[in-house]
Amino acid sequence: MADPISMPSTGPTASVIESLKQVVGAQGWSTDEAERRSHATDWIGRFFVDPLLVLKPSTTFEVSEIARICNDNGLKVVPQGGNTSLACGSIPTGQGDEVIVNLSRLNRIRNIDMFNDTISVDAGCTLASVQQAAEEADRLFPLKLGSEGSCQIGGNIATNAGGTNVLRYGTMRDLVLGLEVVLADGRILDGMRALRKDNTGYDLKHLFIGSEGTLGIVTGAVLKLFPMPSTAVAAVCTVPSLQSALDLLVLCKKHGGESLTTFELMPRAGLELVFKHFPSTRFPLGELQDWQLLIEFRSNDGEERVRELFETILSQAFEAETVIDAAIAQSIQQNKDFWALREGLAEADFMEGAVITTDISLPLSAVPVFMDACSRAVLAIVPKGRVVAFGHLGDGNIHFGLLQPLGSDSEQFLSRSNEIQSIIHTMALSMQGSMSAEHGLGFVKNDAVAQYRGQVEHDLMLTMKAALDPKSTLNVGKVLTIENGALSACNT
Amino acid sequence: MADPISMPSTGPTASVIESLKQVVGAQGWSTDEAERRSHATDWIGRFFVDPLLVLKPSTTFEVSEIARICNDNGLKVVPQGGNTSLACGSIPTGQGDEVIVNLSRLNRIRNIDMFNDTISVDAGCTLASVQQAAEEADRLFPLKLGSEGSCQIGGNIATNAGGTNVLRYGTMRDLVLGLEVVLADGRILDGMRALRKDNTGYDLKHLFIGSEGTLGIVTGAVLKLFPMPSTAVAAVCTVPSLQSALDLLVLCKKHGGESLTTFELMPRAGLELVFKHFPSTRFPLGELQDWQLLIEFRSNDGEERVRELFETILSQAFEAETVIDAAIAQSIQQNKDFWALREGLAEADFMEGAVITTDISLPLSAVPVFMDACSRAVLAIVPKGRVVAFGHLGDGNIHFGLLQPLGSDSEQFLSRSNEIQSIIHTMALSMQGSMSAEHGLGFVKNDAVAQYRGQVEHDLMLTMKAALDPKSTLNVGKVLTIENGALSACNT
Repeated sequence: MADPISMPSTGPTASVIESLKQVVGAQGWSTDEAERRSHATDWIGRFFVDPLLVLKPSTTFEVSEIARICNDNGLKVVPQGGNTSLACGSIPTGQGDEVIVNLSRLNRIRNIDMFNDTISVDAGCTLASVQQAAEEADRLFPLKLGSEGSCQIGGNIATNAGGTNVLRYGTMRDLVLGLEVVLADGRILDGMRALRKDNTGYDLKHLFIGSEGTLGIVTGAVLKLFPMPSTAVAAVCTVPSLQSALDLLVLCKKHGGESLTTFELMPRAGLELVFKHFPSTRFPLGELQDWQLLIEFRSNDGEERVRELFETILSQAFEAETVIDAAIAQSIQQNKDFWALREGLAEADFMEGAVITTDISLPLSAVPVFMDACSRAVLAIVPKGRVVAFGHLGDGNIHFGLLQPLGSDSEQFLSRSNEIQSIIHTMALSMQGSMSAEHGLGFVKNDAVAQYRGQVEHDLMLTMKAALDPKSTLNVGKVLTIENGALSACNT
Repeated sequence: MADPISMPSTGPTASVIESLKQVVGAQGWSTDEAERRSHATDWIGRFFVDPLLVLKPSTTFEVSEIARICNDNGLKVVPQGGNTSLACGSIPTGQGDEVIVNLSRLNRIRNIDMFNDTISVDAGCTLASVQQAAEEADRLFPLKLGSEGSCQIGGNIATNAGGTNVLRYGTMRDLVLGLEVVLADGRILDGMRALRKDNTGYDLKHLFIGSEGTLGIVTGAVLKLFPMPSTAVAAVCTVPSLQSALDLLVLCKKHGGESLTTFELMPRAGLELVFKHFPSTRFPLGELQDWQLLIEFRSNDGEERVRELFETILSQAFEAETVIDAAIAQSIQQNKDFWALREGLAEADFMEGAVITTDISLPLSAVPVFMDACSRAVLAIVPKGRVVAFGHLGDGNIHFGLLQPLGSDSEQFLSRSNEIQSIIHTMALSMQGSMSAEHGLGFVKNDAVAQYRGQVEHDLMLTMKAALDPKSTLNVGKVLTIENGALSACNT
């Protein structure tokens, strides 16, 4: 992670800035230093460089005009939604004359179609406002993130956001049917189709989803809605091993099918910290084991049936000795209490001390071997470090982290972040995993992409960048490390 | 649809052909005229032009070598799987010196991962063989097509195949986790990742899925597997209107969630032909109405519960007068009998006479207005034509067809195909629909893409083609109509 630095920008002609201001009108720009700085600082306080100005367009056409003017005049565009990126994806990083294009004024719910189960929205809608609009129509928009009150749909799409409902509903990519995108040169790609089946040539939208604003600026989207499940019942289980956890997952899928919504891993070390730092939490079972699971089914079958489903699964699991102990929530309050354990894990870590975190994913069958091997590897480097590995086991996404040794120096420990992360990432790659499951690359992991994706894939990514943003205007320095000439070299 | 024609090919140097033969070895090529002609004829008998030779590589490396040699020497590559395209997507069409690269010898199941619920396969595996491998592992690979015994996974991916399970499991695109692709110049893109979450830069696989072999040759894939539902219960219902059918769909989703697997529309005119041409079929309800539905839920809940679910839904539907009559299958045999009605629709049409068919999709809320308006429009042109519109109502995909008037001349009727299809397509487009929901564009609809996708999207498609296949080698003339200079013009 780069340290906060500040670099001066060289200035473009005043007339270009004047044109940009005219596009958005008086409400749509600011050159105020405090506001510039606030938009150029990410939510964990990282700041690299001041933008020339912050633009807040209120229509797709204004975004298009901004892109065109910047593209014509050599200004760099940094698209910004709720600025909740964990990878410095939405702040200037010193790539030239950078302009922040903040989309928060594009915040209309355009349309809800109750029969098609779709919602069309502006990119600047917060995730929470889309969830709420869906709920008012008795539908579910299933993307669920900690930052949902401030993160925006455009950012969710640009980063292919994940969260806690991926096991059942997929990532953001799986929830998008149509997309409106402003291209680097200002052209507007209108793909706001609400169709579940459409085979008329290349699927362009998936190129923009997850491209972190480097290939286009998402301005609108048509999203899938789902029936709202009326019942949610969670359970906490202890299991004798990670392999048993996988065996239990097979049983849950077999009997519960798509109603299995949550299958989260909670380690002993992590829960001990939750109990320490959140004294109101308590463990619902007798004895804490190395591995606990939070499992939830959601359906419209009624609570009794979901409990029966749990009982069917757990009785088979007890017999097969894949479960040591289990508690099924008996009330909504107990369900919340169970979730509080899972939700407290990340925060309890940070409250305990300095943490080196990762966001890896693996084929599920590789998880037990990975956890063992990776723990040994990092403890060989930091013998008294505390491994806390938790996360979305059901979809193979583990936040494998290392907490500083008790009584050690935080800064000294964090100075080894790159080294430790590299060990964890390399281990994940060696087992066909990913070093960025849901957080994206942004500016902090962009140099790893060549190593991870291999030469041909990396070359193709450069080819795509060159094809869609030949002047290298959009979110430059994010996702790809573009050295001088790299783009022109691949643009043959 | 183009008439069968035969055009002579001008020959490349014998040495290039010799190199290609050497790559695949004695088992891997044929210049035999009968075999060439057989591979150059699609399954409904269309034939345009003879290929130079038919190559049957047995490894990804051989495919790569073939692509490289063809790309270096100006030969065109026609990738071919099971050759079941409905759009002439996998046969030569006279674009120069064409070589068929048939993938049927790449037919290994590479790996099944029971905990990750994934299967890795060669592109030449038939769909049926993948379904079977999944079933042997007590898993479901849900893609289901009429041609599953002969169509191949590579073709399913290249065309983003649909079929009867899309409502619940999505199209082929939704079932692919990883992809191995040979690029136009022979480079091998190894993206055989089995991860459900992976945000490490651009998602390249979706560019190849549905590109119909024009951007790369799919040689392998990692596919998702699902729990095998143990219970399937179908019902046949009559509804008073298409709007009632949509209301019923909302109820089915609300109560049944993802267990709703089938929601198919069967019109009076179509079923009358089924009863006429398949005398063993019979209607399970009293009186045939304008619109019937075949609805199926699949789950692991046991038959009793699925029947209860149907009863809950239908009692609400009867009360709201959204259903006229309904029969829930009481046995496996009756389930099959219900399905036979739906499955007989297309064939009964063809047995009755000449049919002009389409493959449109719509936002579901637009279906009632579309059906009414489109019927009027085609009947205004062919007053005694018989509209038979049926299909996957649950996902908005309607096969809207027109049967020749009783006693009319078939050829004269079919000579109006373009005119009639154009009316139907235009109507669908005007309601934000698609003129190719699941069959793709191939060679027969490629000229419609510019109209359908709009200028910016069409330009971007050309940009992608130019970026990935700059010498225009792969399946030329499919998907895009590439006129002289079009590629170089957009390759700026």
